[in-house]
Amino acid sequence: MRKIHVIGIGAGDPDHLTLQAVRAMRSTDVFFVLDKGEVKSDLTRLRTDMLAAHRPEGGYRVVEARDPERDRRADGAAYSPAVDDWRSARAAILGRLIAEELGEDESGAFLVWGDPSLYDSTLAVLEEVLAGGTVAFTYDVVPGVSSVSALLARHRIPLNRVARPVQITTGRRLAEGFPQGVDDVVVMLDAHQTFRRYTGDDIDIYWGAYIGTPDEILVSGPIAEAGPRIERLRAEARERKGWIMDTYLLRRNPGQR
Amino acid sequence: MRKIHVIGIGAGDPDHLTLQAVRAMRSTDVFFVLDKGEVKSDLTRLRTDMLAAHRPEGGYRVVEARDPERDRRADGAAYSPAVDDWRSARAAILGRLIAEELGEDESGAFLVWGDPSLYDSTLAVLEEVLAGGTVAFTYDVVPGVSSVSALLARHRIPLNRVARPVQITTGRRLAEGFPQGVDDVVVMLDAHQTFRRYTGDDIDIYWGAYIGTPDEILVSGPIAEAGPRIERLRAEARERKGWIMDTYLLRRNPGQR
Repeated sequence: MRKIHVIGIGAGDPDHLTLQAVRAMRSTDVFFVLDKGEVKSDLTRLRTDMLAAHRPEGGYRVVEARDPERDRRADGAAYSPAVDDWRSARAAILGRLIAEELGEDESGAFLVWGDPSLYDSTLAVLEEVLAGGTVAFTYDVVPGVSSVSALLARHRIPLNRVARPVQITTGRRLAEGFPQGVDDVVVMLDAHQTFRRYTGDDIDIYWGAYIGTPDEILVSGPIAEAGPRIERLRAEARERKGWIMDTYLLRRNPGQR
Repeated sequence: MRKIHVIGIGAGDPDHLTLQAVRAMRSTDVFFVLDKGEVKSDLTRLRTDMLAAHRPEGGYRVVEARDPERDRRADGAAYSPAVDDWRSARAAILGRLIAEELGEDESGAFLVWGDPSLYDSTLAVLEEVLAGGTVAFTYDVVPGVSSVSALLARHRIPLNRVARPVQITTGRRLAEGFPQGVDDVVVMLDAHQTFRRYTGDDIDIYWGAYIGTPDEILVSGPIAEAGPRIERLRAEARERKGWIMDTYLLRRNPGQR
């Protein structure tokens, strides 16, 4: 039976790899890579470097495919269906690759940034491939250091305050309003710097981009002061590198313990 | 200047250690351990095994102290002040240990279960030690695989649904009601199996105890069916081992994607 590892490789620092991830990488015959166009050069190089470091003897294959385009104009009620369509397109590509490129007794792997459970579609796509019934395999998941943990480690702060809840959400959701019932909110996938809506509020922001890499940028402070600085640094970095991956924590009423 | 590493060591599986964590452990002169009484035998052994595996040549010291007692009767509005008192007591002990046991040019480390940002007090306690001004040091944080990531990896499910937010909260908070604005809730520090309040609801539960260890137990399913099974297994395991560490995800309206 084909076997697939879904391996969390951490948030950008090659030393975020766990011993379990290294072990899984060492037992892999075929690495599947869906590249995302513009971010390819940097991120693919990071993965290639990891393979070179942990599989110096070679003996594995890398199978690359172009990630299907997602309809990025889809918004509001159309967003989830657009994501579903994109997942199905991904499932079709991956199902074909697994069937054609992975031998029946071989092990494949997907190297996933951060932790595979957090805003990553690999698990859902593999379930869709299995549900399609065209190819059979088993899979396991190797947890990784999430971009949230990496962000907070670099800022040296806890995610939660004592006995308080935390929400993890998206820029899209934050645009609908500050979440109910929480004062500590991690925002991911925010292409629009939605924190700017809250410049007038008593909120501290802890922001980071390219965390764990040589390009890492960290900014923190009251949102009224740190916000404009983040906007400027983010625009410059995005221009310079052609892509950006950033995350931030909003901490409301920062003086409250 | 004294230097301290706060090292996330993952959720129980020794192979959750990251390469960065191993490197930090290898550069440490003094490991500080605050033991918690009843869980000592198992958890301290896991840490001791990690040190034996990654520092086989020795050359380090382990400094143990008894964790101060926390007033566990404190509830409601008294809970946070009780935690603050306990942190201050911890800070007093740690400040003394760092000053007395760590040489001015040495490196110390705390090995923290899971990820240091998530419901762990080490960072807050170290800040309190520094604010006290009795001993000076710098510190850094090595992120780890959180118990949340480990739980979800073992269940092979994503934390979030497409474009949906997630809350991380405590059993104490969940007892006040299902959080507003989210359908996916991770519950930590729940000594009272608060999920039982929701047995009549359309909720799936994904539960795990001692994750990543040989004692690992996983249960998932509709809460009405899985709940009683979790209660029984949890009581048996707690009786057998004398302690339990468990975490769970509640997913409301599981049919919705």
